[in-house]
Amino acid sequence: MSLQLRHSNGVYSVKRTTRPAFLAQNASRVKTKACAKSALKPVKSECTAFAPATVANLGPGFDWLGCAVEGEGDTVVAKVVPDKKGIFIESIEGDGGRLSLDPAKNCIGVAATETLKLIGEVDCGISLKLHKGLPLGSGMGSSAASAAAAAWAVNGLFGSPVSKELLINAGLESEASVSGYHADNIGPSLLGGFILIKKCKRGSPVELMSLPFSKDNLYFVLVNPKFEAPTAKMRAALKPTVPMASLVNNCQQGGALVAGILTGNVPLIGEALDSDVVVEPARAPLIPGMMLVKAAAKAAGAYGCTISGAGPTAVAIVDDVKVGERVSRAMCDAFRAGGLEVNTAKIVRLNTDGAKFV
Amino acid sequence: MSLQLRHSNGVYSVKRTTRPAFLAQNASRVKTKACAKSALKPVKSECTAFAPATVANLGPGFDWLGCAVEGEGDTVVAKVVPDKKGIFIESIEGDGGRLSLDPAKNCIGVAATETLKLIGEVDCGISLKLHKGLPLGSGMGSSAASAAAAAWAVNGLFGSPVSKELLINAGLESEASVSGYHADNIGPSLLGGFILIKKCKRGSPVELMSLPFSKDNLYFVLVNPKFEAPTAKMRAALKPTVPMASLVNNCQQGGALVAGILTGNVPLIGEALDSDVVVEPARAPLIPGMMLVKAAAKAAGAYGCTISGAGPTAVAIVDDVKVGERVSRAMCDAFRAGGLEVNTAKIVRLNTDGAKFV
Repeated sequence: MSLQLRHSNGVYSVKRTTRPAFLAQNASRVKTKACAKSALKPVKSECTAFAPATVANLGPGFDWLGCAVEGEGDTVVAKVVPDKKGIFIESIEGDGGRLSLDPAKNCIGVAATETLKLIGEVDCGISLKLHKGLPLGSGMGSSAASAAAAAWAVNGLFGSPVSKELLINAGLESEASVSGYHADNIGPSLLGGFILIKKCKRGSPVELMSLPFSKDNLYFVLVNPKFEAPTAKMRAALKPTVPMASLVNNCQQGGALVAGILTGNVPLIGEALDSDVVVEPARAPLIPGMMLVKAAAKAAGAYGCTISGAGPTAVAIVDDVKVGERVSRAMCDAFRAGGLEVNTAKIVRLNTDGAKFV
Repeated sequence: MSLQLRHSNGVYSVKRTTRPAFLAQNASRVKTKACAKSALKPVKSECTAFAPATVANLGPGFDWLGCAVEGEGDTVVAKVVPDKKGIFIESIEGDGGRLSLDPAKNCIGVAATETLKLIGEVDCGISLKLHKGLPLGSGMGSSAASAAAAAWAVNGLFGSPVSKELLINAGLESEASVSGYHADNIGPSLLGGFILIKKCKRGSPVELMSLPFSKDNLYFVLVNPKFEAPTAKMRAALKPTVPMASLVNNCQQGGALVAGILTGNVPLIGEALDSDVVVEPARAPLIPGMMLVKAAAKAAGAYGCTISGAGPTAVAIVDDVKVGERVSRAMCDAFRAGGLEVNTAKIVRLNTDGAKFV
């Protein structure tokens, strides 16, 4: 089982089909004696990949819009294990011992296994080392960054026969194992920049498009408090139905958000991201101080502030580093006033590279 | 009572405030003897304006996205009536005698009255003649085109002291009197092109932005069947709540629609417009044959097809006139198969001018 890429007018459609024709052109192959089947040989013995943090949901962009940000991320070292088959997790650093070394129960294991399905048969096993740069359950796409780094590192061992767009399928399976079948973290962590998920339903091709942002004056203020906001709990906070008026509001603000990105309008991005009336009001009360943080960010000069991913990290939008510093202090103070300590507070730019070899 | 225009980064915010400072610069004034108050003098005795048809709702763009299209529209002739005050409707053609000549009960009357409120005191009365080029209740923004033409013609009598963006307020009051407080028809009929309504709530400034479309290969196939689809009935067909999954779908498709417009991607515009899962499924069953029309349009090569405005007109998107002709025939046949006669079938481009003097 492998894939087909339809790339029409800027929209990528990624679909599993029969035989990966592109592999023949992109990678060396070893034919086995038994039949005409071929197993792919690695082109290097070790490959290290980094994948960035992401900010998903983005207010009205819930479940369909995310972006990659500079700064921290996760790193995976993939090593060839000759004369073996399968995926092995050698070590994990930076997780406080919380993640499983069982490849079936860890997002790098799932992503690597799914990446091998996309590549086709290979003639070796692969061991993985994960260094987590992102806190777990922070709302900054920690699991997606691990999965993206693993997929890109494993792919790199074989000369990168699979495109980043196609690797989203591997990442999606990994994401599904931890937080649900959503591409708004894994898409930007692999590809970089703002990614609009046009369609993402299991059994259908994933459709996504990159939304180019042309200015250099967009900054994200990310404040991560010491608080657990498990994705499952945050998802359960959402009501199964929403009022029609909320639909109209979120659609129009989602449209304005896309317009803000494509026209390089930072104030518009901030205001639109700030205007979700469905998800944020349901989730913010579960994060102590979040509404105070939001108000403080705007009072300090941010164009808008909302929950990053499923939280607890808060994200504010500014177009000036100095304003960002003031906003960051105000947000930290507000979290503390709400009773939470602050893990990290950062002012970061958009990451436009996504996963990369290091 | 008058207005203030905030124009920040491509977003117009139109708000009623105290005194129209801009008037002093743009128009001649007559000071009365009684006090320092001044009444504006007309600069011409007659002014004729045309305003184009519009396609609002646009699938997931329900209540927040519309565009103006070339071809038919409504025309209003405004004439100065010396030594009188107020708005008078002299005649209406093309409505089959269905519209009221009472200015308080007719959208041109309401729009003209509201336009005068924006201009300030004037020293004459105004009579209006309306020529309707658009069928009533067609879903092509018939009432908005009348209101836009009336507002622009009245404004023109006084040297156009009020900008088109500000005149949206006059149009909104007119629209509210016939179909609700929605700017997705009046906005594009006045301004032309695609207009995103970012905020439109009575008592708050209207916020909107123009979404430039840079290509010339976008065609709308508009097929208007002989059928009444009153806006009130079509609005009543909508449920008060929608499933969360439908919110996500419509937000992502609305975002894709904006991305399609701003990147000049006609297939993407068509597919996104075709993908509403909230409004179209509730309203289409009220228009005989609509689902057949939609299927026929796509089978004939359209990128997507949905209900224009509140219907009954169906709109399909193509990027080639020849395909449009085939799509048009298929849509007409499908309406007839559904039991409806066809009034008009047209293939039109985007109108980028909006209301204009003729």
